[in-house]
Amino acid sequence: LTAPFTFSHAAKLLKTSGLNPVVLEARDRVGGRTFTVQVSSTRTVTQSSQQTCIGKSHAFKGPFPPTWNPFVYMDLNSFFRTMDEMGKEIPREAPWRAPHAEEWDHMTMQQLIEKICWTSAVRRFAKLFVNVNVTSEPHEVSALWFLWYVRQCGGTMRIFSTTNGGQERKFQGGSGQISEGMAKELGDRVKLQSAVYKIDQSGDAVVVETVDKQIYKAKYVIIATPPGLNLKIHFNPELPPLRNQLIHRVPMGSVIKCMVYYKDNFWRKKGYCGSMVIEDEGSPIGLTLDDTKPDGTVPAIMGFILASKCRKLCNLTKEERLKRICEIYSKVLGTDEALHPVHYEEKNWCEEEYSGGCYTAYFPPGILTQYGRVLREPCGRLYFAGTETATAWSGYMEGAVEAGERAAREIMCAMGKLHQSQIWQHEPESLDVPALPFVTTFWERNLPSVGGFVRFTGVSAFLSVAVAAGVLAYKKGLVPRN
Amino acid sequence: LTAPFTFSHAAKLLKTSGLNPVVLEARDRVGGRTFTVQVSSTRTVTQSSQQTCIGKSHAFKGPFPPTWNPFVYMDLNSFFRTMDEMGKEIPREAPWRAPHAEEWDHMTMQQLIEKICWTSAVRRFAKLFVNVNVTSEPHEVSALWFLWYVRQCGGTMRIFSTTNGGQERKFQGGSGQISEGMAKELGDRVKLQSAVYKIDQSGDAVVVETVDKQIYKAKYVIIATPPGLNLKIHFNPELPPLRNQLIHRVPMGSVIKCMVYYKDNFWRKKGYCGSMVIEDEGSPIGLTLDDTKPDGTVPAIMGFILASKCRKLCNLTKEERLKRICEIYSKVLGTDEALHPVHYEEKNWCEEEYSGGCYTAYFPPGILTQYGRVLREPCGRLYFAGTETATAWSGYMEGAVEAGERAAREIMCAMGKLHQSQIWQHEPESLDVPALPFVTTFWERNLPSVGGFVRFTGVSAFLSVAVAAGVLAYKKGLVPRN
Repeated sequence: LTAPFTFSHAAKLLKTSGLNPVVLEARDRVGGRTFTVQVSSTRTVTQSSQQTCIGKSHAFKGPFPPTWNPFVYMDLNSFFRTMDEMGKEIPREAPWRAPHAEEWDHMTMQQLIEKICWTSAVRRFAKLFVNVNVTSEPHEVSALWFLWYVRQCGGTMRIFSTTNGGQERKFQGGSGQISEGMAKELGDRVKLQSAVYKIDQSGDAVVVETVDKQIYKAKYVIIATPPGLNLKIHFNPELPPLRNQLIHRVPMGSVIKCMVYYKDNFWRKKGYCGSMVIEDEGSPIGLTLDDTKPDGTVPAIMGFILASKCRKLCNLTKEERLKRICEIYSKVLGTDEALHPVHYEEKNWCEEEYSGGCYTAYFPPGILTQYGRVLREPCGRLYFAGTETATAWSGYMEGAVEAGERAAREIMCAMGKLHQSQIWQHEPESLDVPALPFVTTFWERNLPSVGGFVRFTGVSAFLSVAVAAGVLAYKKGLVPRN
Repeated sequence: LTAPFTFSHAAKLLKTSGLNPVVLEARDRVGGRTFTVQVSSTRTVTQSSQQTCIGKSHAFKGPFPPTWNPFVYMDLNSFFRTMDEMGKEIPREAPWRAPHAEEWDHMTMQQLIEKICWTSAVRRFAKLFVNVNVTSEPHEVSALWFLWYVRQCGGTMRIFSTTNGGQERKFQGGSGQISEGMAKELGDRVKLQSAVYKIDQSGDAVVVETVDKQIYKAKYVIIATPPGLNLKIHFNPELPPLRNQLIHRVPMGSVIKCMVYYKDNFWRKKGYCGSMVIEDEGSPIGLTLDDTKPDGTVPAIMGFILASKCRKLCNLTKEERLKRICEIYSKVLGTDEALHPVHYEEKNWCEEEYSGGCYTAYFPPGILTQYGRVLREPCGRLYFAGTETATAWSGYMEGAVEAGERAAREIMCAMGKLHQSQIWQHEPESLDVPALPFVTTFWERNLPSVGGFVRFTGVSAFLSVAVAAGVLAYKKGLVPRN
């Protein structure tokens, strides 16, 4: 059994069911891509986005940067609406069965953006939207896959929003604590520094060998690594041809997470929430969040170096990266205070042999329709978990839990302890943190795209739509009121 | 030291230089992707393409299927010419430095085909051209990478041609004999069934451990697997971030090689050479060659199931695949004799754990410009060979030899036995099999593309160009003379 975050959940479920699971973890810590440096007590904390946020060079409220230009507003509105409409066609559990699966999978997101978006402002934003959500470039990923990814996170608003969205909450003390707590509960069933290099299921038991030369025998194995890391294992018998090729085709994204610590949170004094959306090609950082502790101590800004920028800045020294980051914060926040950090921490996920990158695996064009079917198809007594195999919030901790529990139930089913119909279980809505519906206005639903507008309307219609768009943007707080 | 075909060459060179190399081979045989089932004596044999070849439903001579339609001819001519002109801009040893590297790398070949080709006939052919050359789909591969690949094989004519091209010769008795011969020479330095799972270069010696629990200590290591198979190894220290991510991003193509044996070579009696270019979407096979032995015994047709067809037909039984193959041969050759094979052999390269696919690795969009630089960059005492790291005929045996010898010389340089300027050595032209220049006609160089033609000419010019194209096609034997 190989394992990061997901696996604790599978193991917990199996243990509760009276089985005897062992968790083999490659690293010297549990938690995989949830990695916390300092730890204290756990409760969820809401990210503030009620204060004014910062776009390229101006302040704004709400999850997305605003615009006064009615064409840009129409274009942005149409981008989100089109993405969500296309997404609705895609089955969460089987995106390869979407009516336009092949057509969309043969396209990169770059191509789709060029088709949907008319204004350079929205194209730039769309690129950043891909960068931030999947730490990859639009030309690297399949349009079908990205549409699916956004869809299974509840759509463009849900995935990107702080308030009422995927970015709303974090764990006080860090999410790493969950795995640590579960590892404690599992006790010496969790074996650290136990990277698996060989799985032999040619005999009665499945024999698993680790780099530190331990041998484990099991009836069933759950592999909970990202799919590409299955390659660290030598299999006997070999994996079936499609899985053997799939695992070479789903790389992890590229990101460096950068924490800049300051003496005080000067941005709050200026009325800024610390969230910045920075579209500037020359900026190392694409997105930031205030990471000051809930009690106001340890003022810090967390920023992501994303996708191609990550690969370009990999070769700099840590000091050089910090310098460039502070410079862009100073420029965007309009104060020299940003130039004087008191501490800096960074985590380059690209260098982790046992992650391969972060946050999640992406599908280049053509792969999802050809290989998606085998993503969680068991091979003999091997079962596959990991957040990449989930059907809701895949790529997130939520997806890891879904996948771990599903794989555990697959094994219980194989052992005759569960009926096949019980493998997939509906997760009830959280009572503490329900996903509230997003209210859309008549104009958001019906405002034409720039293309539709240019084709079907004259000048007088343009003026009335433009005015409507402007008023709407003002009302929703999408434009600065200063 | 890990090793297929390439490695024998590196080892031979190192041994000749007085060093003491050991070759660790994962499989129970040497040769990697050169795998021969039966063996006899070795000499090269010329593929016949002097007889009439078979296109979709008609016979033709020359490497490419012909056309009577002057638009299609102009379009085909322009496709090859444009590919070759773009290719000339791309440095063989550093495609990421091409003037348009980023623009072309952000595009798939599918996008480039849609830009260059005007007629559906040529788009279909262009798709097959990609399928046959790199066992992938046009929407899967970067345009920059494919243009580079064709360029470093000498251009569209050289890579695709039987006469005077990459497909002209094969080894009588099979190419596997070369590795076998060299393995014999290297004696017990070659260790079979020795898949490497761990390389530790944290100490004085590089320590290499194999799945069969042998430990080897070396001063230097050459890894000669396809880049993606580096992932089978656990590294200490970890690989640098860009290499750690590169090896997740360069999958191997997909192909099943299918040998259908017949009582006699009935196609020759009909005046056909056995080469078929089959564009039909419903056909399992895209390209065939006559594989009868030079003395006329063991009549056989070799065919490739390529790219997406390979993945679709993976799940059939061997018998079902044979049936579908015979049916299409029967249809194309116009005779029921093709329905009655006497024997069938196939090799599905997708199921090979230690190849990952065949013939070679491909670069999806965006990867070559971001990660290409580290493809053969040493990591400490690890050096990288394998045909994927070559700068001429990469993907072929020729490239494997170049790469193996270059890596061996890098190590000799590190040991002070060679000057850095001697690492890259110019390979003199073969005297036995020189690459003769392709003669192009005035019209081939100057015939407009369909686009250029539509934009700049009127009806009378169309007629004269059409006549010129028709006459040219007739003269070059590109149209059937029946």
